[in-house]
Amino acid sequence: MNRRFAHGGNIYDANPAQGEWLDFSANINPFGLSTAVRQAIEKEIPRLVHYPDPSARALKQAIAEHYEVPVSEIVLGNGGAELFYVLFHAVRPKRVLLPVPSFSEYERAAISAGAEVAYFPLREEEGFRLDEQALCVQMKVGDCLILGSPNNPTGQRVERNALEAVLKEARQKNVLMIVDESFMDFCIDAADYTARHLVADYDHLIVVQSLTKFFAIPGLRLGFAVAPQTLAERMDASKDPWNTNLLAQAAGVAALADSAFQAQTLAWLKTERDFMFRSLNMLAGIKSYPPTVNFILLRLTPSWGSASAFCVRMREEGILLRDCSNYPGLDDTFVRVAVRKREDNERLLEAFRRIGGEIK
Amino acid sequence: MNRRFAHGGNIYDANPAQGEWLDFSANINPFGLSTAVRQAIEKEIPRLVHYPDPSARALKQAIAEHYEVPVSEIVLGNGGAELFYVLFHAVRPKRVLLPVPSFSEYERAAISAGAEVAYFPLREEEGFRLDEQALCVQMKVGDCLILGSPNNPTGQRVERNALEAVLKEARQKNVLMIVDESFMDFCIDAADYTARHLVADYDHLIVVQSLTKFFAIPGLRLGFAVAPQTLAERMDASKDPWNTNLLAQAAGVAALADSAFQAQTLAWLKTERDFMFRSLNMLAGIKSYPPTVNFILLRLTPSWGSASAFCVRMREEGILLRDCSNYPGLDDTFVRVAVRKREDNERLLEAFRRIGGEIK
Repeated sequence: MNRRFAHGGNIYDANPAQGEWLDFSANINPFGLSTAVRQAIEKEIPRLVHYPDPSARALKQAIAEHYEVPVSEIVLGNGGAELFYVLFHAVRPKRVLLPVPSFSEYERAAISAGAEVAYFPLREEEGFRLDEQALCVQMKVGDCLILGSPNNPTGQRVERNALEAVLKEARQKNVLMIVDESFMDFCIDAADYTARHLVADYDHLIVVQSLTKFFAIPGLRLGFAVAPQTLAERMDASKDPWNTNLLAQAAGVAALADSAFQAQTLAWLKTERDFMFRSLNMLAGIKSYPPTVNFILLRLTPSWGSASAFCVRMREEGILLRDCSNYPGLDDTFVRVAVRKREDNERLLEAFRRIGGEIK
Repeated sequence: MNRRFAHGGNIYDANPAQGEWLDFSANINPFGLSTAVRQAIEKEIPRLVHYPDPSARALKQAIAEHYEVPVSEIVLGNGGAELFYVLFHAVRPKRVLLPVPSFSEYERAAISAGAEVAYFPLREEEGFRLDEQALCVQMKVGDCLILGSPNNPTGQRVERNALEAVLKEARQKNVLMIVDESFMDFCIDAADYTARHLVADYDHLIVVQSLTKFFAIPGLRLGFAVAPQTLAERMDASKDPWNTNLLAQAAGVAALADSAFQAQTLAWLKTERDFMFRSLNMLAGIKSYPPTVNFILLRLTPSWGSASAFCVRMREEGILLRDCSNYPGLDDTFVRVAVRKREDNERLLEAFRRIGGEIK
């Protein structure tokens, strides 16, 4: 794997010196598999001798109800990331306009489909907030535009009025607009931010959602897109009919029905996200950007060494961080950390204090 | 799903009047999940909170050893079918030359990548044997050619000398050649037929292999391609890095190590395939084409009614057959049946005798 497109969560590249890794590099719900999801998977193992349902009736119905979108607009993915490849291979955009820093699979998928990629820099001085007016100026006729909301690794969300301004300009310029909401489920106020419901009104809008992060099944792969029906059909025709495996379909149905797990996760996150943000901000020489979801972007001053060197040093402590130096738009001073349970978070903070910082 | 591209094994479209379906429409090893595979899957469930290994080191090593191919030539697929989409999206062939009848995903994948599809008819009068000389004449410069070997649904394999003749002509004409060996593991004499080892000598050859049929994990999805390294890297760059889920990777490693299951399967197939072929041939008004693997193509005379009507009638008996009338090159007189265990095979034969036929 080209380092340019390396990700967090790659525990396989990392032989732990001491037992299991404490993985702050992947943004996965620390509650792990819910009992309901685990049981659904176990129950379906004997059925692996059958093909998955190519229409995925049960899962699409569950998604339609939970996310309040019509079944006809749902395209299932073998993880959220697959859907960028499926979409770009289906529509073959000439140019993809990409606010950066953002999830690197957007660019990798675009390149694989022969697109030229143009960066739109999100400015550190503005806390990486999207400047929608500047973005509108940069859009060219026929482009494809991808907005992460919440954006990975900055945590910034696109405000509703900014989103609508961009959507209208995109329609004028025949721009296909993708909003990646893979972390939206971690927002308590998701209803104020999601663009899912706008797909019915804008036939150039696609919303991508992952179920692997919130429901802690990255190893199983599950995601979906909400797309205008014509485009949904085109995407379906560009992938094999069994791309969502049988266990993932069952896990998805169980996960979406498990409202206790969802409530537990949001309650945990409200407390721990703020705790982590406050605690990290108390470390001298670290700037942390206000989080909206289950990860926090940090900037280190030179006293901490480079981000890459710091991550190497933390590995010696058994802790994996996301070195963000391979993100376009970031340099070797940025690190991303997940929010985990209190005990783990304390361990991270303790290591930070011991290794690099002094209490302000 | 467009009926044109409908498949066997879709138990979800079929509400059984009486309990479980007896599924002769999908060509899956009737021994089902081996104990080793089931245990490997169960053991990995707690690890689903991690991403799959994007390099899939353990699985690629197991494939390299079992199939005697270099790791650098292996591209992993979320099932064999995915690899046709990945390949066609990566290379964007202008024209795909397709001997028919054959697996319909070849054509669906080619169309999705914008290719024109040209049929090369396999002739019923010749038992659907590939006429390699006629095929060579039909190849145009720059084409892409797909040969199923063993071919689904005819069961015909491409003889080694025919394969080499086609390979040489393909090289002359800059034709990219794909051999689909998804059923090859069911051949006792696979070593005499496989093209895997030729990839080292021909840089325009790709061999696709499925692990879902022989190892009975279609619900989990697993396949691989053996491709020249440059093309393997291009295919890897055209798909997301986590396309092979964590359970499928573990199941694949366990399956390839389970030589007892492999031997048991081949011993069963040798007996049952011949038993089924003989028994079906004894039914008046049915022509069965000599099988090489775990399925048999049948042709019905008009006394049996159309293939589609016959399949509907068999459903009333709780039995699913593969109505082959949607295969280009076949008409509404062809049916494909899987080879299952003796008890099931007897039940199929009994239903055939009762419904449509008389003993010769």
